[in-house]
Amino acid sequence: MTDSQKDSAATIVFGSRDSKAAIESGAAFAPKFDADGLITAVAVDAVTGTVLMVAFMNEESLRLTLSLGEAVYFSRSRQRLWHKGEESGHVQKIVEILTDCDQDALVLRVDQKGPGACHTGYRSCFFRSVSVADNREASLKTIYPAKEYDPAAVYKA
Amino acid sequence: MTDSQKDSAATIVFGSRDSKAAIESGAAFAPKFDADGLITAVAVDAVTGTVLMVAFMNEESLRLTLSLGEAVYFSRSRQRLWHKGEESGHVQKIVEILTDCDQDALVLRVDQKGPGACHTGYRSCFFRSVSVADNREASLKTIYPAKEYDPAAVYKA
Repeated sequence: MTDSQKDSAATIVFGSRDSKAAIESGAAFAPKFDADGLITAVAVDAVTGTVLMVAFMNEESLRLTLSLGEAVYFSRSRQRLWHKGEESGHVQKIVEILTDCDQDALVLRVDQKGPGACHTGYRSCFFRSVSVADNREASLKTIYPAKEYDPAAVYKA
Repeated sequence: MTDSQKDSAATIVFGSRDSKAAIESGAAFAPKFDADGLITAVAVDAVTGTVLMVAFMNEESLRLTLSLGEAVYFSRSRQRLWHKGEESGHVQKIVEILTDCDQDALVLRVDQKGPGACHTGYRSCFFRSVSVADNREASLKTIYPAKEYDPAAVYKA
């Protein structure tokens, strides 16, 4: 992101969280960031509704997402802004952003560019289902027939 | 939940998180709980795919969810187990549980009983979309035509 893009994003005005009634039924967007300054963001395919990934945003990344029209997260592991697709090209164009009753979570309806959202090569990060066997071991089964791309060809490092 | 149900849930065996390769592509379910002991859970309608709500589980509530076949969350505000629907009757029957590449988030595909998941009366907690006006104020617009039920008739207190 350029400084100009960051300056523009900083001008967006959020509402106040003073009143529970206003948060639940008012017209102001007043997102709640947790003790670490983060809000949960669930990216879903705008056409199919499939959940692609779950990530987090800090206030700056949420402002940039609204301003740029592309998903910008905050990477907890790298502790920095993460413009999704910056390395892979698999950017997420924002179609619509939804918030929930207490405004502490977001759903991003996105147009996922490229073959997939997941760095492992699958379309969605949620490519496995959980089951508990008779011996009480919880195990995983891949629910997609195949990967969409070869991660090694996309992610260097 | 009864003590017997809790005892049964406690016997479920999770995998180890020692190896990144095993976490990303192995067959063991090895959920990651954050510093507060929680994992993000996104409930989606199993038929339509609509995101209904985002909540959190601690290890006990995840075990109970797997064991009972109904969503049990951990309420951060009340700091206790929260069997969804315990007051409203709007329980969430588990159809399938998915986990993501690093196993630090869950998607619950559920059969939502009753008229809605949200305590405000809407089918989904994500009943509003965010937009930024020309004056840079971020505002909300309700995307559903109407509430599904009257919360005052369902939630006493």
